[in-house]
Amino acid sequence: MIKIQTNMRLKLPIICFILEIILIILFGVLVQYDDETDAREWHNKLNHGNKSHSEHNGHAESEIHSEYENDFYYRYPSFQDVHVMIFIGFGFLMTFLQRYGFSSVGFNFLIAAFSLQWATLMQGFFHGMHGGKIHIGVESMINADFCTGAVLISFGAVLGKTSPVQLLVMAIFEVTLFAVNEFILLSILGAKDAGGSMTIHTFGAYFGLTVTRVLYRPNLDKSKHKNCSVYHSDLFAMIGTIYLWMFWPSFNSAVTAHGDDQHRTAMNTYYSLAACTLATYGMSAVTAHDGKLDMVHIQNAALAGGVAAGTAGEMMLTPVGSMIVGFLAGIISVLGYKYLSPILEEKLKVQDTCGVHNLHGMPGVLGAIVGAVTAAVATTDVYGKGMEDVFPDVAKGDITASYQGVRQAISLAVTLGMALVGGLIVGFLLKLPIYGAPPDTICFEDNIYWEVSSTQPDNPLFYPSVVSETFYC
Amino acid sequence: MIKIQTNMRLKLPIICFILEIILIILFGVLVQYDDETDAREWHNKLNHGNKSHSEHNGHAESEIHSEYENDFYYRYPSFQDVHVMIFIGFGFLMTFLQRYGFSSVGFNFLIAAFSLQWATLMQGFFHGMHGGKIHIGVESMINADFCTGAVLISFGAVLGKTSPVQLLVMAIFEVTLFAVNEFILLSILGAKDAGGSMTIHTFGAYFGLTVTRVLYRPNLDKSKHKNCSVYHSDLFAMIGTIYLWMFWPSFNSAVTAHGDDQHRTAMNTYYSLAACTLATYGMSAVTAHDGKLDMVHIQNAALAGGVAAGTAGEMMLTPVGSMIVGFLAGIISVLGYKYLSPILEEKLKVQDTCGVHNLHGMPGVLGAIVGAVTAAVATTDVYGKGMEDVFPDVAKGDITASYQGVRQAISLAVTLGMALVGGLIVGFLLKLPIYGAPPDTICFEDNIYWEVSSTQPDNPLFYPSVVSETFYC
Amino acid sequence: MIKIQTNMRLKLPIICFILEIILIILFGVLVQYDDETDAREWHNKLNHGNKSHSEHNGHAESEIHSEYENDFYYRYPSFQDVHVMIFIGFGFLMTFLQRYGFSSVGFNFLIAAFSLQWATLMQGFFHGMHGGKIHIGVESMINADFCTGAVLISFGAVLGKTSPVQLLVMAIFEVTLFAVNEFILLSILGAKDAGGSMTIHTFGAYFGLTVTRVLYRPNLDKSKHKNCSVYHSDLFAMIGTIYLWMFWPSFNSAVTAHGDDQHRTAMNTYYSLAACTLATYGMSAVTAHDGKLDMVHIQNAALAGGVAAGTAGEMMLTPVGSMIVGFLAGIISVLGYKYLSPILEEKLKVQDTCGVHNLHGMPGVLGAIVGAVTAAVATTDVYGKGMEDVFPDVAKGDITASYQGVRQAISLAVTLGMALVGGLIVGFLLKLPIYGAPPDTICFEDNIYWEVSSTQPDNPLFYPSVVSETFYC
Repeated sequence: MIKIQTNMRLKLPIICFILEIILIILFGVLVQYDDETDAREWHNKLNHGNKSHSEHNGHAESEIHSEYENDFYYRYPSFQDVHVMIFIGFGFLMTFLQRYGFSSVGFNFLIAAFSLQWATLMQGFFHGMHGGKIHIGVESMINADFCTGAVLISFGAVLGKTSPVQLLVMAIFEVTLFAVNEFILLSILGAKDAGGSMTIHTFGAYFGLTVTRVLYRPNLDKSKHKNCSVYHSDLFAMIGTIYLWMFWPSFNSAVTAHGDDQHRTAMNTYYSLAACTLATYGMSAVTAHDGKLDMVHIQNAALAGGVAAGTAGEMMLTPVGSMIVGFLAGIISVLGYKYLSPILEEKLKVQDTCGVHNLHGMPGVLGAIVGAVTAAVATTDVYGKGMEDVFPDVAKGDITASYQGVRQAISLAVTLGMALVGGLIVGFLLKLPIYGAPPDTICFEDNIYWEVSSTQPDNPLFYPSVVSETFYC
Repeated sequence: MIKIQTNMRLKLPIICFILEIILIILFGVLVQYDDETDAREWHNKLNHGNKSHSEHNGHAESEIHSEYENDFYYRYPSFQDVHVMIFIGFGFLMTFLQRYGFSSVGFNFLIAAFSLQWATLMQGFFHGMHGGKIHIGVESMINADFCTGAVLISFGAVLGKTSPVQLLVMAIFEVTLFAVNEFILLSILGAKDAGGSMTIHTFGAYFGLTVTRVLYRPNLDKSKHKNCSVYHSDLFAMIGTIYLWMFWPSFNSAVTAHGDDQHRTAMNTYYSLAACTLATYGMSAVTAHDGKLDMVHIQNAALAGGVAAGTAGEMMLTPVGSMIVGFLAGIISVLGYKYLSPILEEKLKVQDTCGVHNLHGMPGVLGAIVGAVTAAVATTDVYGKGMEDVFPDVAKGDITASYQGVRQAISLAVTLGMALVGGLIVGFLLKLPIYGAPPDTICFEDNIYWEVSSTQPDNPLFYPSVVSETFYC
Repeated sequence: MIKIQTNMRLKLPIICFILEIILIILFGVLVQYDDETDAREWHNKLNHGNKSHSEHNGHAESEIHSEYENDFYYRYPSFQDVHVMIFIGFGFLMTFLQRYGFSSVGFNFLIAAFSLQWATLMQGFFHGMHGGKIHIGVESMINADFCTGAVLISFGAVLGKTSPVQLLVMAIFEVTLFAVNEFILLSILGAKDAGGSMTIHTFGAYFGLTVTRVLYRPNLDKSKHKNCSVYHSDLFAMIGTIYLWMFWPSFNSAVTAHGDDQHRTAMNTYYSLAACTLATYGMSAVTAHDGKLDMVHIQNAALAGGVAAGTAGEMMLTPVGSMIVGFLAGIISVLGYKYLSPILEEKLKVQDTCGVHNLHGMPGVLGAIVGAVTAAVATTDVYGKGMEDVFPDVAKGDITASYQGVRQAISLAVTLGMALVGGLIVGFLLKLPIYGAPPDTICFEDNIYWEVSSTQPDNPLFYPSVVSETFYC
């Protein structure tokens, strides 16, 4: 019976092929190279630029004098770092489960490859249309990866309890809602959120938490002995953690304005993460009865400083401000893992496999609040002419800095609302018994969806949990 | 007797030291810094550039106005991504074998370190000579890594059945033939192949397949129980896969013209790979009787989209064109693993350990064909003045676009011919019983060439295949 | 009793929180954005630059014409590569120990996150003060990571025998001494050491070796069965090795002058490492009685070429010179592991867990000597106007090239003296029985400081050393 329920032989190929064919058709109809990737358009700009050389000006982006001014050279290194975070960072972070390594890195790969294509269309539809066409280049690639990040955060909440078909369906809707929310925040409300404390982390976390709440499995404890790590799986997970940690400065600065903005954002994030790491180690030891460090905290809470610097990172947060934010993020994240997660699971029935509430949810909200406050206290004295890049409406005199702070705060509320309502609807959609989700007894188990020798689960040597249910659980 | 045959105590040091000493002598005689790495030459260019500032022109590369115009800043990030693909990507991709992890990553390391030095000389000899000297800089470093890539593809075909000495001998000849073939294609025939669908993938794959055919071992089934993966080895292999996947856009764009060309190539490859991944997951599930995904497909076929975009990536392939190419590449690659590889092994006696025919061979040929077609339909209307960068001879009016397509097709034929003839000769050379190749009974086994505690193979705990020959085989 | 000694419940949180709070206070008082990260200052430079466009000059850094001239774009990719070396490279290189993977990567993470903050202050204090404030940007971030590298080298010497509290205390002092030594070398003596053969490798190695000598444990053989690797731990370590190897060109070139200097340094290091790798494989096979390769050599000695090119890499060392240096470094490093390390341990009582003397100590001294010789033979004929960047005092005519060589030699002596005296003092400080160091019987054991299921050590399946003490030992 289980075989029939979870067999992917038709379901997965059908959804993969239909989605990809739809994507291909829509790309064919709607998507074009932008001015910097199109051979003709770029060379038109380049020739025009050379003629008007006497009007040379560092700001006017429409005047190009050299192949070296192509935005590729100023965004692509950041893009590659973000790309590593999405595919290696998120993928390996989730391999901590002893019997779910293939699915963690493999489904991460699948839904990310789908989401980045779908996000190109959805984000392009909302803010990349030029004469009925979506124009794409390296910046849209970064934004597509960002949107994918939100989906992967939600994946962390439902990890081990969902089929790949379910995950693809979730991605379809989540990417769409992400694009709507992003459009509301950045284009309608005029909020700033370069590193996505709100658009990516808060949205992805609360969307995923709502979905996992709706998909609540009262008998999940039947798979409890598989919902834990072993020695080597924790080392694989550390590959994910460290890559996320190292490249977070690139993540937060990838789409800010060029110049001081990118430079400052990367540096703020660097110090926020460093401070967060010390807080995490301290909190992990102090909350353990025997003073021993918990790998779950190190793998996750040490990253909260990057999340919390996602909104204010591009602002004049100052290095010390960044460190304080990171320090607080690390503390609340460990406390969340230690004390809040068990309550959420028991009282609110939120089964949050990776603890995304502690790594993305609370630190994301903290980041949004810090962003609102930092925006509200911005002055021309501090920003000088750089105000144009960070808060253009304030620089133009259209609004006050305090009002920018209000915009940021409203944006947080909108994001939370979108995530909760969206997660609720999508959760019920995913509850339909048609996606081949695993039964309660064999969650957190690669064997369901992957070719793993059928003799293996009986062999205690390589499926440790069979012989020892207590490892790390 | 086995000890005597495979003992590397003299053979390996002798070949390593002789090769390195020859390299050092040839570098001493032939190799010089180029204009961008030489202190005097670069500063001469820089000073000259500053004087002629009024003639500022984005295209003329000989006029330099700033240290920032050094090509280091526009090629080195791409180089580093390529470097990661060569050493981490290829190295870890091959660690899927349960008892061959040290050799996979270790021999990959050795032959890559040799090949990149030898390739500097061979490629320099054919197209980098200036007044009797080979001039080197970041672009030659990328090209050397590219040539190394072809050797590593061939390594994948013979993996587990060859000694390190054999591999170094293979590398000596393959690098040389690679440089000859590359010279014929790019300089004589005037073909375009920035990402190396032909020069790297088709050449490396068919060269390696011919070598492994010549080295055919009729009794290889004696080592069959070792020629398979275990749970953790598949996770290590996924590190290789994901790095190759992520950085393939940098690979294909690393040596194209600057500006729109690099930008476009990276983006085309990005979408080709994403589409290929969905095709791979769909095909893997549909071809399995129980609908379970096969790690071999995910690890390999998902990369075929990068291979297939290697020639046309820099052309105006369009995003949708890239996606169609990637989609097809994923499908044929999985079909190859599932249905063609067993036939090749049984009927044609080609023992292709990593399935390079499916990952590099067929997708490489597909990429070459796509390149020929895309070139043949190029128009000035689409490329504008960018035609100069992509098809200089067409832009100059020397040839028509259709003729460029013919050039590309001839180049594919030349590459296949070079690979087959070269592989045949080198294969027979490698058949000599002097290199310490492993006997049929202990192929795919680190123990032959690496210090692994002699008690370990008897201990079932860490050498799983002894207790269970069925794991993943 | 052991529980009481090593319990970190109070010690670790107290030191983490106190250190981070002190850092926050000092950052608040002393640290500011530099001209390239501060919104107002950068835009002031930018506007000024645009006005004086007619005086365009590639060298004058104070005139800025475009956001693209921000140093972020010319240093940040190098920074990220260095960052990967520090956190992934060093972290995973040390995971070779079978039962110490959590601590290797985890304590590496902790002390690196602390050290980079503390180094920002110490290095800023010695050479980054502007009007009483420390100005920071991407270059100071690279320098902070560099200083952290020295601490991690010392960590390699004491690995497995120290508590995290001890390591943090060591870092406090070592970072301080590093900054003093660096100031003496670069600012007072006028030495060049862009890749840190002296400041990072020689200093870090001999400091760490002196500390481990003072902390000599006569009964360490009680933990001997844990001080070795297993199959998978060696593969994890290879992740560290390969990343260090690949990104070493970025490391050595990260803070050199822009243009030819960075370009040349990266290329010299690339060839030095390649030659070193062939030497390592040859030496590893020839020194083994059965000709089998030793993973310890491959993991470590293959990197010695990067260390040895740390000082001369930015000079006109020539490609062939780089290869000779790398070749020698590989040979002495393997010889050190094979013959010198056992003597150091037995005769001099230096228990060097990772063999940092062979990877960083001797190659660092070699690199310093090569740097002194290369400097001494520098001529204007070879360097042209590039002399200003490499040897400014020689270019100005203040000193001769030979005298620059003398400066370099003196710098090596100063570094050795600082490392030995500093290591001695800090070693005795760390000997105090207050830090919770592990007893001799349970060194090299994660279980002391990390949550690892208490049933695990009794289970032979996942703690291999219990059943087989001979694995790789």
